[in-house]
Amino acid sequence: MAVRLTLPVIFFSSHFPPSSSRSRSKTCCSSSASSSQMELNNEFGVTKFKEFPYVSAPHRNLMVDLVSTVENRLGSQLLPCSLPPDVQYYQNQTGSAHASLHTRSGNKPSHSQIDFILGSWIHCELPTGGALNITSLSAFLNPLTDAPNFLIELIQSSPTSLILILDLPPRKDLVLCPDYLHTFYEETQLDTRKQILEKIPEVKPYISSSLYIRSLVSPTAIMVRIETEASQPGRVEEVIKDHVDPIAKEVLGIWLDQCACGKREVGEAERAILEKRDGLIKIKTIEVDLGSNFPRLFGPEVADRILGAMRDVFTV
Amino acid sequence: MAVRLTLPVIFFSSHFPPSSSRSRSKTCCSSSASSSQMELNNEFGVTKFKEFPYVSAPHRNLMVDLVSTVENRLGSQLLPCSLPPDVQYYQNQTGSAHASLHTRSGNKPSHSQIDFILGSWIHCELPTGGALNITSLSAFLNPLTDAPNFLIELIQSSPTSLILILDLPPRKDLVLCPDYLHTFYEETQLDTRKQILEKIPEVKPYISSSLYIRSLVSPTAIMVRIETEASQPGRVEEVIKDHVDPIAKEVLGIWLDQCACGKREVGEAERAILEKRDGLIKIKTIEVDLGSNFPRLFGPEVADRILGAMRDVFTV
Repeated sequence: MAVRLTLPVIFFSSHFPPSSSRSRSKTCCSSSASSSQMELNNEFGVTKFKEFPYVSAPHRNLMVDLVSTVENRLGSQLLPCSLPPDVQYYQNQTGSAHASLHTRSGNKPSHSQIDFILGSWIHCELPTGGALNITSLSAFLNPLTDAPNFLIELIQSSPTSLILILDLPPRKDLVLCPDYLHTFYEETQLDTRKQILEKIPEVKPYISSSLYIRSLVSPTAIMVRIETEASQPGRVEEVIKDHVDPIAKEVLGIWLDQCACGKREVGEAERAILEKRDGLIKIKTIEVDLGSNFPRLFGPEVADRILGAMRDVFTV
Repeated sequence: MAVRLTLPVIFFSSHFPPSSSRSRSKTCCSSSASSSQMELNNEFGVTKFKEFPYVSAPHRNLMVDLVSTVENRLGSQLLPCSLPPDVQYYQNQTGSAHASLHTRSGNKPSHSQIDFILGSWIHCELPTGGALNITSLSAFLNPLTDAPNFLIELIQSSPTSLILILDLPPRKDLVLCPDYLHTFYEETQLDTRKQILEKIPEVKPYISSSLYIRSLVSPTAIMVRIETEASQPGRVEEVIKDHVDPIAKEVLGIWLDQCACGKREVGEAERAILEKRDGLIKIKTIEVDLGSNFPRLFGPEVADRILGAMRDVFTV
């Protein structure tokens, strides 16, 4: 299977079977549901998301820690997840693919710089007998700041192979903005983290097949494939625990301190350019990254529902 | 030696010793020289450049073929080289470093889309007994078109190691311009060339230490290090002849057909942005790439003369 999912991925639950009549509502659930039922459904969805089932303990712990760190630090800047339950957790018709999606928009009245955060996991049984597991967390800022976004994605297609994408994707043309490059990528020493990982013998470069994705990421993006020997069971988990975990937390810390919570001067003209660029990235993310994979993994009906919900979040 | 020369490099001759009194004139040589003397000097400089001494036959043949192809195809669109002789060919005080620089500006009255082409070689004896040889050819377009530039650079620091940079660096923010990405990088199948090279066992990724250089190149940039065994003498030359040579010529062909000679609609506002972006790239190229290496390799006086001449060419 050609894995091209290289930006936030998403999921679907056995507890909430597909319903073709459901509209792409931005509200939590259907209008007939009571408020307490809505809360219960939402709580269930959030719990399912944070379970990160199917992946190893070091992988799960890393994702849970990252999500908790973001949610604790940003606190009231984030609105509760308002996705319908059958988008928060879903599956395909045969039950061979399960997934969860969790989004929280920025609280505009609080002058939050957060556009939204988006977390997800996907589990898909492979015809070869193994399974594909993808977990991701990304955070998009709004045009009150021009600081970079955050992205982590782990794609595991076998017990001996893991792809890691970890980056602060820039929101400006770095060639035109050497100061921006200096502030967010040179001064933060992001490249030293990349170099540390690349020195591990099992770590090889990973090159996305999408040229658009390659253009989106920063020059310090960590895009690697961890390939271990079958004779060394548990080595992927060891690399996650000892190397990926601390580096991912450092990079998230840099993003929280200097991007999400740092202040930047953004003029009106620049804000318009940011809005255009951010908007294009979101459209292309759905089109390039998810549009081609989702119908294949979940069938057209589920894919349509999930991508519709994604578009709603992306254009809020 | 930390090689950071990753855009056009330049050189200095024993035949034209440094002269601190020489101004950074854009004319061919000093005002006291006769016209025929100027022509002779120029011819000598061009001949020295096209010798590509010190490198292996396959390496030299490739560079000579690329320069000839560009000059023959662009013909009268290019003005003759107008660099002073002591910039066309130069050396350091001890004679341990030799170099040559060759530039030809676009002929504006002919409505050429060429800003200038810049070729160079450098030879530098290393304290360890070996030598560093760098050859490069780059071509910059002007704002009559927004099509990508061309760049090839070969850096050989030992008989068993060669770095290759081959790219059509974009002149726009690819994230904002998916059509541009599609036209010049997807439709041209540039990535297949990259993949062919990367499949050769001796070929490893090369990552520039400069984040600015990483930002400048395209998502299909070939940036590789060819590392061969000492037990296989001549293997680097074999890889150049059998793989680098045909691929470099194909990429140059794409650039000539679709970039240098293709027509693009460029509005006035867009032209201003291109001018700003092109200008910044040239400044940063000198600053990041050459400014730090040249004084070290050639001493401050020679470095000052060569970088001054470069600045003149870059701002014509």
